Amino acid sequence: MSSSHQKKVAVILSGCGVYDGAEIHESVLTLLNIEQQGATYQCFAPDMNQHHVINHLTGEETAEQRNVLVEAARIARGDIEPLAALKVADFDALIVPGGFGAAKNLSDFAFEGAELRVQVDMMVAVKAFAEASKPVGLICIAPVMVGRIFGEGVIATIGNDAATAEAMEQTGITHQTCAVDDIVVDESHRLVTTPAYMLAQNISEAAAGINKLVIQVLEMTG
Amino acid sequence: MSSSHQKKVAVILSGCGVYDGAEIHESVLTLLNIEQQGATYQCFAPDMNQHHVINHLTGEETAEQRNVLVEAARIARGDIEPLAALKVADFDALIVPGGFGAAKNLSDFAFEGAELRVQVDMMVAVKAFAEASKPVGLICIAPVMVGRIFGEGVIATIGNDAATAEAMEQTGITHQTCAVDDIVVDESHRLVTTPAYMLAQNISEAAAGINKLVIQVLEMTG
Repeated sequence: MSSSHQKKVAVILSGCGVYDGAEIHESVLTLLNIEQQGATYQCFAPDMNQHHVINHLTGEETAEQRNVLVEAARIARGDIEPLAALKVADFDALIVPGGFGAAKNLSDFAFEGAELRVQVDMMVAVKAFAEASKPVGLICIAPVMVGRIFGEGVIATIGNDAATAEAMEQTGITHQTCAVDDIVVDESHRLVTTPAYMLAQNISEAAAGINKLVIQVLEMTG
Repeated sequence: MSSSHQKKVAVILSGCGVYDGAEIHESVLTLLNIEQQGATYQCFAPDMNQHHVINHLTGEETAEQRNVLVEAARIARGDIEPLAALKVADFDALIVPGGFGAAKNLSDFAFEGAELRVQVDMMVAVKAFAEASKPVGLICIAPVMVGRIFGEGVIATIGNDAATAEAMEQTGITHQTCAVDDIVVDESHRLVTTPAYMLAQNISEAAAGINKLVIQVLEMTG
């Protein structure tokens, strides 16, 4: 890979909105930081119904049905592809923003905890990056999936929530407490995680950790 | 107003998604820049049905009905108030991101052009800031409303789209061409505008102009 190669990052979105999809601030900050580091991105999302739809004003579940890919297209301004079409050879790295979509659509952690299963397109995609030794960055609640995807022995963070950390450790991984503006790096698994809105009280705090994560992931592409 | 006063900006959102609501990148960049300049924000949106719902993957209209306030709550992480409840006395400035929601929900410019009408809560809110001599920033397509709201003689920009600029001038204002990373300032009306995704080819370009707009609006609060 020549030094003039512009790095390309795949970004997996899980819908559009913190309570039933991808956290919007985290997603936009990820895209912004990727570009500001001189790289480019392509968004992906699974073509499947959302687990449910939450009215973000009231917090209540509605009777609507929405599709994860169609809603994620709002964040991507229409430029998004089905996650099943992701070819790892086309990318240098992968980043997954958080939001409940990571725990309700990309996995069922929100309902099953340590017994979670990972959505099939998500499992295939992240495993392909891991096997190709290409770096992966997971933000906010998304790291709850690492035990299932990378296997035991991985080191990751979701901040400092004790119950979530314990459930993650039950999947065979080591949870490391992390400040909102910091990252946890598992060099051997080429995995970077940051708490973002698991801890952030405002968008600036989320931005600080995501900025570090994007820089670290791009550095690990070599 | 003491120098230790933390400035507070009202942000009016028009839904959640570029084709039928608020442009998501512009909205998040606005919130980020407000905080990074040491100010705070409160989001508002009109409590009304969207003009329509666009599938952002296909670009086609769907049969769904969605509410502007409920969808905008996704961008605001639930912390949003009805636009009719906005009290100008509580804020130092107002900023309105773009997206088709500004031309379909906050006004009907997308359908009526120079004959546009401005949604009533929007008209009342922006006029109140203007009458209080508090600065207003309008992003992307949102400036198409300035003739109706501020009256004739205003100077504003939507970038360089000739047809849109001509329709704006028919409402009695002066359109000034503007680069994607720049702003147009109408000092006498305390109005700042920037093209953002009317011209931006990527999120970094949109970020450059929005960053300048936020800084200028906050400077004009004195």
